[in-house]
Amino acid sequence: MILAVNLNASIDKAYTVENFKPGTVTRVKEVIPTAGGKGLNVARVLNSLNQTVSVTGFIGGFSGAFIEQQLKEQKMPFEFIHVNGETRSCINIIDLSSNIHTELLEPGPYISEEELDEFLEFYTSSVKQYDVITLSGSAPRGIDTDIYAKLVSIAKDANKKVILDTSGEYLAKGIQSSPTLAKPNKSEAELLLGRKLKDTGDLASAAKELVGMGPEIVAISLGAEGVMVASGLTKEAYLAVPPKIRPVNTVGCGDAMVAGFATGLSNNWPLTECIKYAVAVSAAAALSPVTGGIVLKEVDNIIGSMDFHNLYLL
Amino acid sequence: MILAVNLNASIDKAYTVENFKPGTVTRVKEVIPTAGGKGLNVARVLNSLNQTVSVTGFIGGFSGAFIEQQLKEQKMPFEFIHVNGETRSCINIIDLSSNIHTELLEPGPYISEEELDEFLEFYTSSVKQYDVITLSGSAPRGIDTDIYAKLVSIAKDANKKVILDTSGEYLAKGIQSSPTLAKPNKSEAELLLGRKLKDTGDLASAAKELVGMGPEIVAISLGAEGVMVASGLTKEAYLAVPPKIRPVNTVGCGDAMVAGFATGLSNNWPLTECIKYAVAVSAAAALSPVTGGIVLKEVDNIIGSMDFHNLYLL
Repeated sequence: MILAVNLNASIDKAYTVENFKPGTVTRVKEVIPTAGGKGLNVARVLNSLNQTVSVTGFIGGFSGAFIEQQLKEQKMPFEFIHVNGETRSCINIIDLSSNIHTELLEPGPYISEEELDEFLEFYTSSVKQYDVITLSGSAPRGIDTDIYAKLVSIAKDANKKVILDTSGEYLAKGIQSSPTLAKPNKSEAELLLGRKLKDTGDLASAAKELVGMGPEIVAISLGAEGVMVASGLTKEAYLAVPPKIRPVNTVGCGDAMVAGFATGLSNNWPLTECIKYAVAVSAAAALSPVTGGIVLKEVDNIIGSMDFHNLYLL
Repeated sequence: MILAVNLNASIDKAYTVENFKPGTVTRVKEVIPTAGGKGLNVARVLNSLNQTVSVTGFIGGFSGAFIEQQLKEQKMPFEFIHVNGETRSCINIIDLSSNIHTELLEPGPYISEEELDEFLEFYTSSVKQYDVITLSGSAPRGIDTDIYAKLVSIAKDANKKVILDTSGEYLAKGIQSSPTLAKPNKSEAELLLGRKLKDTGDLASAAKELVGMGPEIVAISLGAEGVMVASGLTKEAYLAVPPKIRPVNTVGCGDAMVAGFATGLSNNWPLTECIKYAVAVSAAAALSPVTGGIVLKEVDNIIGSMDFHNLYLL
């Protein structure tokens, strides 16, 4: 059983427009609103993979009620802490004339100290019933950047496996609490280490160096190039590259990879099996037009034609 | 007692941003959501003018519930028809770096035939208890462009005064049902007549020509230049120009002018008094930073220093 944490929920609105220009008034042709957030994407993929999953975080106001209604319709179990402010919207403006995408991310509500305490209390008692906890994305305002470090520690104190997928300060502080697995993408890993990662050798030593900072396993996701994983337990690095596919929608593929890892860890698979499955689920997500959706029947095919390498590091 | 019709309600969201550019991801610094729509602006100003007013139209979903909650907090009476779809949002992106404003208007929900019938039934029985009905703005999808023609006819059949402030096809069809007063702005009048209106003479003959199409009174609003009014009853035109002021926020000044006219018509003032009051209320609205707000104490001062002309047309 898996708990997917999504602190900063959002209504993601896709706006279809034509000839969008700053300084003008644009009538939006179509609006498609969906319950959004990286943790929610993880949970949706886990649902498709037939894993038992619940999603949690903060939710507020009428926008929050809209999200809860959508999750109910999708039969996605959730248990949110209700806060005073309004849950945010994130706008993706898709210009049909130029094919240029423009995003506007609202900051989300301020979370009070009492609301954060309520969440931490819920989380601490809740993690006991799960095998794996996934922590994804940013946090709403009013919450310190050490939040994921705290959430990792609480999960580990309860002897649970925990996957961390965040960025910037949240990631820098979070990995110090030694999550089971940290999944930065390449640019997040570069930001954390303060250098460019140019080739396989760079990536392998980067993953090793990040393991040295705390996590048991570090998986640097590489988009179409798959993933570079280093393990502090096996003292090995692994490079898994999926076959060439025709991607339909690459938004949320990193979240799908987290869902793949969570499935493997929850079922106590060997690490190499976890990695292959995570890469296949991520590639299968690129084949689905729906963010947080996957083309399930392709997972086994992708595993079958994957390029997999063990790299001895130590 | 005045009924303000606002068919296409909206949550107007002001986004404060920096360096907004298409093709990028922008984190919004601050979001200020308000219950929006031209009819709502009219109703708010009428409230400030101590007139008894209620607002109606369609409202839907969680966004609609947000608007009703805001109106309750503002002690604004309302009676909306609840529809299946979600009420729209309209985004105003205010770039602090360049001072460029960019607007994105969502289309609003589709209104079903049954929902429209429900509204028309409510409206027909409701207008009986009001002296003046104001009709403002556009209509949501699924509603034919003759909607305002219908709403004018229903109000006139009940012997009520009705003010029409809309544009395009809604206006072209609406004026044929002979509203008591139509208030296009200059560009709406130009669009309707298919020619540019360059000077006072042009404006006076345009107003007269529009009166010939149906309305008893036509008021062409001219922004800081006030209003040109033609009356089919007095066979005169009137030009009212407010004193020079320092505008703070000119959004909603046309709606404030409608509120001024509605107040005058509701209290059976002579037409010249209605005009002076409407222009003063519109100018007082430009002095308030809040859309739909006015600086009430300035109304009498502005009337006192107004430039007012009778132009004999026939």
